[in-house]
Amino acid sequence: MKIIHEIYDIKEQIKKWKKEGLSIGFVPTMGFLHEGHASLIKTASKENDKVIVSVFVNPLQFGPTEDYSDYPRDIDHDSKICRENGASLIFNPSPKTMYGDKNYTHVNVDTLTNKLCGFSRPGHFQGVCTVITKFFNILSPDKAYFGEKDAQQLAVIKRMVKDLNFDIEIIGCPIIREKDGLAKSSRNTYLDNKGRQAALVLNKSLKSAHNLLESGEKDLSKVKKLIKNNIEKEPLATIDYIEIVDSLTLQPVYKIEDPILVAIAVYINNKVRLIDNFTFKIKQVK
Amino acid sequence: MKIIHEIYDIKEQIKKWKKEGLSIGFVPTMGFLHEGHASLIKTASKENDKVIVSVFVNPLQFGPTEDYSDYPRDIDHDSKICRENGASLIFNPSPKTMYGDKNYTHVNVDTLTNKLCGFSRPGHFQGVCTVITKFFNILSPDKAYFGEKDAQQLAVIKRMVKDLNFDIEIIGCPIIREKDGLAKSSRNTYLDNKGRQAALVLNKSLKSAHNLLESGEKDLSKVKKLIKNNIEKEPLATIDYIEIVDSLTLQPVYKIEDPILVAIAVYINNKVRLIDNFTFKIKQVK
Repeated sequence: MKIIHEIYDIKEQIKKWKKEGLSIGFVPTMGFLHEGHASLIKTASKENDKVIVSVFVNPLQFGPTEDYSDYPRDIDHDSKICRENGASLIFNPSPKTMYGDKNYTHVNVDTLTNKLCGFSRPGHFQGVCTVITKFFNILSPDKAYFGEKDAQQLAVIKRMVKDLNFDIEIIGCPIIREKDGLAKSSRNTYLDNKGRQAALVLNKSLKSAHNLLESGEKDLSKVKKLIKNNIEKEPLATIDYIEIVDSLTLQPVYKIEDPILVAIAVYINNKVRLIDNFTFKIKQVK
Repeated sequence: MKIIHEIYDIKEQIKKWKKEGLSIGFVPTMGFLHEGHASLIKTASKENDKVIVSVFVNPLQFGPTEDYSDYPRDIDHDSKICRENGASLIFNPSPKTMYGDKNYTHVNVDTLTNKLCGFSRPGHFQGVCTVITKFFNILSPDKAYFGEKDAQQLAVIKRMVKDLNFDIEIIGCPIIREKDGLAKSSRNTYLDNKGRQAALVLNKSLKSAHNLLESGEKDLSKVKKLIKNNIEKEPLATIDYIEIVDSLTLQPVYKIEDPILVAIAVYINNKVRLIDNFTFKIKQVK
């Protein structure tokens, strides 16, 4: 798998592809790729002539007490995943290449970033939006692929693209899960055996919430409460948030009209923060 | 002069030009064009196959007490100036076209925007950077032209382009002045006769400061003081700021090493805010 580290080099490559009229799909990642990323790359390969996977652990989106330096990295494994799923190349810049000595410019999406992960991780989405804007300008892809596991990120990026008039189609791809239901995440590697077992509470509590909604429950506070009770039964789990919001604006909803996003973040062993979610749309009454 | 109002239409036009391999120069303006803008358009016409002039009074860059609704507008006159100086078309979107019902996304350049006009006009440069990012994404020009009269704006946009990896060359063009030295500005039309006369104090005080620097003065506090004394002699003038800063970083300088920017903002009649500046580079001692 070809790995490009410098901005100049990748731009030269892209210029060649554009001249040949080839379409470009972009899959931004922080590396340590798993089947979730693989599915993004595979989808991108089907829909584009060329696929660029960025592998960049973006310091700007980590808080001072977060796991930037500990975040798992394995470029050889990433190359394998990229190759197997049809990527054309990996863009793997250094923080210095991306930000130089000093970065003064930031992109912010307000309102959508106040709640959920944005509340627990101040500055996180500013870091995400800034680096994604940079990647979009460097790579000028036709389409970019984001996992629905990071539901807030997907909504924020879609809004940013709309507000800043980027000519890029943003594609959300479904959550990929382990056989027992745990959403795939690079952070799952932080879990010990007991934590791994406890982490099932995320998907399980969401499943029961989904069932309750399917059965016709309209009172969203009851849905929230069900999730809360489920998670609190797991001694290794601590709730960061349980939110039910409009799936586009991420603002609180109290009635189900437009599609809703049910999203949770849970600490396992008080240190590994995991997220999961589902989107629910009420069926039209005939 | 062709005037395009809709984003879709201008993108179609640009697509055609790009297919033909034509280069595109962009001159962003708030309309009410004067010889300053004319010189930008003329320069752009020399350096590009096609030139787009945007005429858009950007609500985002005006403070709540500023002159957004009063800002002078005259699209017929603007068309004439554009035609005479070689523009290919005017892009004249409505605020609704640019921002829809709600804009959640903003671009900020920090540090460079804390002082000078950024201090007097909080939010101003966020508005400028956001709208320019949108224009850059809509128009994807090869080069964009900005007047050196708005020295801070030029420095901020250059920094934004660098930080966000826009593939656009930013060209600064010299200040154009009236015969008596007043820097051309759409806001000069707000001046009555006495105010018009009083406004000469900006250029005059900068000239004397330039002479003092040319004569070898190294103490920048003395240069500032000379400007201050000059302006204070004019009863209709009130100082907003007098700053001597590094011309790239806009941070205060106390010694002249790299090129410095001497920039002032002055209220005439307590209501018309005018700016002027010059850049000074010490001559190498042989």
